[in-house]
Amino acid sequence: MYVKGVNLGNWLVLEKWMSPALFDGTTAEDEYYLSSQLSKEVYEARIKIHRAEYITEGDFVRIKAMGLDTVRIPVPYFIFGDRPPFIGCIAELDKAFNWAERYGLQILIDLHTATDSQNGFDNGGISGVCKWSRQPDEVEFILNVLEHLAERYKDRAGLWGIEVLNEPILDNMWEMMDVPNRYPAADPEKAKGSGPNTMEFIRRFYLDAYDRIRKHLPEEKYIVIHDAFNLHAWKDFMREEKYKNVVLDTHQYLMFAEMDGCEQTARGYTRYIKEHYEDEIRKMQQYFPVICGEWCLFNSLAVGCDTRGGQSVLNGQEGMSSERISQDQKKEIYQAVAKAQLAAWRAGSGYFFWSYKLLTDTVNTPGWVGWDSWDFGRCMDLGWFPADN
Amino acid sequence: MYVKGVNLGNWLVLEKWMSPALFDGTTAEDEYYLSSQLSKEVYEARIKIHRAEYITEGDFVRIKAMGLDTVRIPVPYFIFGDRPPFIGCIAELDKAFNWAERYGLQILIDLHTATDSQNGFDNGGISGVCKWSRQPDEVEFILNVLEHLAERYKDRAGLWGIEVLNEPILDNMWEMMDVPNRYPAADPEKAKGSGPNTMEFIRRFYLDAYDRIRKHLPEEKYIVIHDAFNLHAWKDFMREEKYKNVVLDTHQYLMFAEMDGCEQTARGYTRYIKEHYEDEIRKMQQYFPVICGEWCLFNSLAVGCDTRGGQSVLNGQEGMSSERISQDQKKEIYQAVAKAQLAAWRAGSGYFFWSYKLLTDTVNTPGWVGWDSWDFGRCMDLGWFPADN
Repeated sequence: MYVKGVNLGNWLVLEKWMSPALFDGTTAEDEYYLSSQLSKEVYEARIKIHRAEYITEGDFVRIKAMGLDTVRIPVPYFIFGDRPPFIGCIAELDKAFNWAERYGLQILIDLHTATDSQNGFDNGGISGVCKWSRQPDEVEFILNVLEHLAERYKDRAGLWGIEVLNEPILDNMWEMMDVPNRYPAADPEKAKGSGPNTMEFIRRFYLDAYDRIRKHLPEEKYIVIHDAFNLHAWKDFMREEKYKNVVLDTHQYLMFAEMDGCEQTARGYTRYIKEHYEDEIRKMQQYFPVICGEWCLFNSLAVGCDTRGGQSVLNGQEGMSSERISQDQKKEIYQAVAKAQLAAWRAGSGYFFWSYKLLTDTVNTPGWVGWDSWDFGRCMDLGWFPADN
Repeated sequence: MYVKGVNLGNWLVLEKWMSPALFDGTTAEDEYYLSSQLSKEVYEARIKIHRAEYITEGDFVRIKAMGLDTVRIPVPYFIFGDRPPFIGCIAELDKAFNWAERYGLQILIDLHTATDSQNGFDNGGISGVCKWSRQPDEVEFILNVLEHLAERYKDRAGLWGIEVLNEPILDNMWEMMDVPNRYPAADPEKAKGSGPNTMEFIRRFYLDAYDRIRKHLPEEKYIVIHDAFNLHAWKDFMREEKYKNVVLDTHQYLMFAEMDGCEQTARGYTRYIKEHYEDEIRKMQQYFPVICGEWCLFNSLAVGCDTRGGQSVLNGQEGMSSERISQDQKKEIYQAVAKAQLAAWRAGSGYFFWSYKLLTDTVNTPGWVGWDSWDFGRCMDLGWFPADN
């Protein structure tokens, strides 16, 4: 098994930096507050048009033509429409299955958010809040969502697998990202009691989720667990024979490498990728098939300034408004990090680029030069990605 | 001069069949009635998200990577935002110029609609109404819009030219399309007095428009006139030396060929293309550089049933809900008509495919099988288009 895919990020789970127009006229940094700052009618109109236009049949045709075989689709905890004011999106996922099956792709459903969040990131649905795991009713709610997803799609040829939960955070990443400052809570009262999850909780949750999903899901469909930003921590996990086709998902961004002290040169990046990503995936591949479920070409060198761990205008960083390095240099850097990363994933069982597309405008909005390297389509069209991926 | 391009149809001038979600919950067939059936806030929300998501920076990157050099951008008469409740879109066109210049493309601005319409088509902005040319104030208004566009973009490297007005209709096409029945007016009162334009009016308007635009526009930028569906009617037009770089635009769809009796076989289509399109363009090319500003691969044979001149579910036709012919046969038909049409345009000065993309869902909505052949991206990705275009 080797999977080559892209994420359909920002389709059903919003990220402001990827489609800023959705947030126009509000101070919201995430979907939680977007819904509270717009009238019900306007919120609904924006979300529905976004969902109808951002990803469509033609995108599945294109992804197939790009030589990929699978898409990872982040979905929110309110996918079934039972948590107003948020709007369900199971109809969109149904359509995606029809498109995937028509054009020969498969889908990894990725539960990307949980009520009150599992990580406090903006992409967790509510910035600066992280207390889902402290609410047993909500943990049960999430297990139910997973079970319903498994029931609904279990027999679909288009189902590759289900990822239990995206990026539940532990204390190491909570500190490295400095979550309370990088993603300040809009309502400090609401954020009270937030903090990283415990490893004990995550393990228990993964075991429960496996049972609840596998009850419905045929053995050949994958159940994916995220490494909680600790790739090595799973050597003694799910060793029992009953666990079948469990895939370990690790997310590797060069911005994390930079925060870890990786030198901001092409040589620095490629060495880090080889010595860390490739080496560590190879080791863990003895225990689980390992995929890199999120990565991209973004790095500070190609941006032209130190982004201090991938911080953007939205984090109050100035960014670059004009190109500092030539297009040729840029291409050279991106091709080098693309090649090195693709080689690293080869030590495991595959990858999903983050993300298939983003609407971020590097030309008309100041500070975003270099952020197109998160956009798979642009990376392909600009020649930054090796044809043989 | 040879131009290879696509239309950015349905971005700033809506067509319901190309993005049905915008019209959800209404009975509107066009933007005129869409605005009247939605609250101001919801209309604005839908339009703004559509404009922000349908065409973005990445699309300009992709169009360049597809080997094209120019985009034709249909714009509405209310582009400057001076005709409420319709929402201006000059900011979007400004952005498009920045993207085009950044990625090495040029823009043909195409004034696609006029107040109370110049053709009565849905894509003229208001179905079944055609009485713009009878209102001198509105004719003057349109001339002013053209002049303002010329003034605003005259010095832009990204400007290829300005098309005076899309598809003003004469009596032959009015009858062939049976406009009052194919595009029934939502409000018969409003449609009263509608009918085809006269040739005399169109010629006068083109001469006036040329003067008003050229006053600002450098001589090397093109001024484009549509043939009003009468390619031969312009041999004695604008022969005076003062008219510089005027391009004649003809729109050729196989659905018109079918209405003209063209046999619905691959051989029938390619013969018709050669004997009519290619031959007629070659003749007119002695008088003007001729472009085919709209065409596509759509034809009844590949759909699997007679579409009676390109009528869809929206015209009350049933259409096809499952594939009747194999993917290989389809590919063969599309490649044949693509090749023949590209050869025909070579007798002239270039082409713009209609359209770059459409959101029409052939998988999840009944009756739309075959309509993906209007989508340049899908045609490319599905291998229906020769790589050497």
